[in-house]
Amino acid sequence: MKILGISGSLRAASLNSRLLEAARRLLPEGAEMEIFSSLADIPLYNADIDGDAKPQAVQALQQSIAACDALLFATPEYNYSIPGVLKNAIDWASRPAFKSVLARKPAAIVSASPGPLGGVRAHAHLRDVLAGTLTPVFLAPAFVLGSAQNAFDDAGRLVDETAQQRLTRYLAEFVDWAEALAKT
Amino acid sequence: MKILGISGSLRAASLNSRLLEAARRLLPEGAEMEIFSSLADIPLYNADIDGDAKPQAVQALQQSIAACDALLFATPEYNYSIPGVLKNAIDWASRPAFKSVLARKPAAIVSASPGPLGGVRAHAHLRDVLAGTLTPVFLAPAFVLGSAQNAFDDAGRLVDETAQQRLTRYLAEFVDWAEALAKT
Amino acid sequence: MKILGISGSLRAASLNSRLLEAARRLLPEGAEMEIFSSLADIPLYNADIDGDAKPQAVQALQQSIAACDALLFATPEYNYSIPGVLKNAIDWASRPAFKSVLARKPAAIVSASPGPLGGVRAHAHLRDVLAGTLTPVFLAPAFVLGSAQNAFDDAGRLVDETAQQRLTRYLAEFVDWAEALAKT
Amino acid sequence: MKILGISGSLRAASLNSRLLEAARRLLPEGAEMEIFSSLADIPLYNADIDGDAKPQAVQALQQSIAACDALLFATPEYNYSIPGVLKNAIDWASRPAFKSVLARKPAAIVSASPGPLGGVRAHAHLRDVLAGTLTPVFLAPAFVLGSAQNAFDDAGRLVDETAQQRLTRYLAEFVDWAEALAKT
Repeated sequence: MKILGISGSLRAASLNSRLLEAARRLLPEGAEMEIFSSLADIPLYNADIDGDAKPQAVQALQQSIAACDALLFATPEYNYSIPGVLKNAIDWASRPAFKSVLARKPAAIVSASPGPLGGVRAHAHLRDVLAGTLTPVFLAPAFVLGSAQNAFDDAGRLVDETAQQRLTRYLAEFVDWAEALAKT
Repeated sequence: MKILGISGSLRAASLNSRLLEAARRLLPEGAEMEIFSSLADIPLYNADIDGDAKPQAVQALQQSIAACDALLFATPEYNYSIPGVLKNAIDWASRPAFKSVLARKPAAIVSASPGPLGGVRAHAHLRDVLAGTLTPVFLAPAFVLGSAQNAFDDAGRLVDETAQQRLTRYLAEFVDWAEALAKT
Repeated sequence: MKILGISGSLRAASLNSRLLEAARRLLPEGAEMEIFSSLADIPLYNADIDGDAKPQAVQALQQSIAACDALLFATPEYNYSIPGVLKNAIDWASRPAFKSVLARKPAAIVSASPGPLGGVRAHAHLRDVLAGTLTPVFLAPAFVLGSAQNAFDDAGRLVDETAQQRLTRYLAEFVDWAEALAKT
Repeated sequence: MKILGISGSLRAASLNSRLLEAARRLLPEGAEMEIFSSLADIPLYNADIDGDAKPQAVQALQQSIAACDALLFATPEYNYSIPGVLKNAIDWASRPAFKSVLARKPAAIVSASPGPLGGVRAHAHLRDVLAGTLTPVFLAPAFVLGSAQNAFDDAGRLVDETAQQRLTRYLAEFVDWAEALAKT
């Protein structure tokens, strides 16, 4: 099971990029994660430059999605929604719709934030977007990490044990679900 | 009453940019619209490059928002939501939150699309985002223009008379509301 | 494949109840539908009367859901959302959460309305609710029937041929998906 | 300033009803709250029994809304949304649309829940619904009370001092806003 991890934040010390890195280490045996690290190179979507000659960073994103078995999004919440950065990447990745690499690709959503709500409002918007791209989303009580700055050490590693355990269990169930779905 | 018009699409022949241009012409007397045409220059949001030395295109956007009395968004619907391009611009414009130029700025949302639903799913997401930025949104039955390609002539002008009348009435009520709100 | 059909409207001549009845007739071979017709008997949710001695109508609803292979919701849109009547039934059906009959039960959403938007705003809310109940929702371009009063004859039968064809195809794909999911 | 308080829960010991009672006591001078306590008597919405001879409990609700200057909703989150009970009351109250008592009535949303997220997902749905009823909603960082059972004493009084202070400030700003809006 190859998982592609996508962080919605471009910030170097992003809590969500750190959460994604923690997820990479806590995956169950048999699953591995590549983290897509070039969201910063994807230009603003413009239908006039879409088509066969898509920007190279978009082609790389589409190839990475096509090559993986499942997607894990770690997203901040900006203004009660997902970052424009993440939405923009999805807008590119989803086209053309008739051969979208996102259609039928299993996905899960996690989030971290400094506040107590953990970015949960971003989940609803991302689920809507992924309904639009025909991407099935893992159903489970939302995985959110509130007050997230306290859960990582100075090197950016997730050291909060409860969070580690919750994430480990969440990922195990996600992988089970994605594997079962792959057989349908 | 100075209105700033923002289109969520960068495409040259965008239906929403055309709808915005039609709105500019159909405003009630005493109101005028400037269309913000540089969304394409706004980089992807990254907190590491936010701060006092914001990118120039972001500063221009914030100054235009600060200088206007009200905002009119014309947005396509991409994947059941607003384009990442538009969300990204709002993410930049909303910071820092404690002196956001979007807070308390009256706004309205219209949309056009080739399909019968007119892009209405984008409205709900944009209303959520604008709740997050503390931007009051004009309440009215949603203005959507479905099958929009039929409503414009080859030069991109809105020629559908019913659509013109609906838009004229919508704008008149929006301007009335925004003027009343400005006095509070 | 036994499908349980649930209409969100209690009105005798409801467009959505008629759409559900049409769906019952247009199912692919091997699938059949029972329509749950007693939503009107379900009391307002009150945790104080929930528990082992649930109201009888609620027990009947839970048993019908438990006994079916998949759910088909036909819902009007009231105030940009699903009717309270439908949400109330789901609130009851989902409890207690640890043995919810809604968890992992495949579901699809269709809607009809007199207006051009066909009730599509109700879909997003119902998808959110079904994410909360851990109910997987069939992913497809939204099935909405706008200007629906014109699609039925005086006896309430769906006579619009395009609508019949769209619904037939939608149901066939829904049943395929639900069958595949049942094997996971 | 007369505020009508509406709790989305019928449970006798409801955290949200308690939060509403706390709000009643913490209102700024010059504002008072009546709590609408008969949501339990409102039948399931059915257009066939709507009209001039509405059920008496619905008439009482509409009269209370018409007579107040502003609305305060305290709502639990059920299945990522508002309770069917609350949505059902709003469905009734909003009709007929052309003389809706909800249109232009200022409103605010607060929520309490046992979990850490405080019911915040209900806010987005209620804001959508109130956009549908043309009801302006007070814009502020969401007031949610997580782990709410710890904030009340055995008699159901809000005793958590931080929560009291937050609520007091929220209500003062809400009343200021509603008063300003009333003058437009």
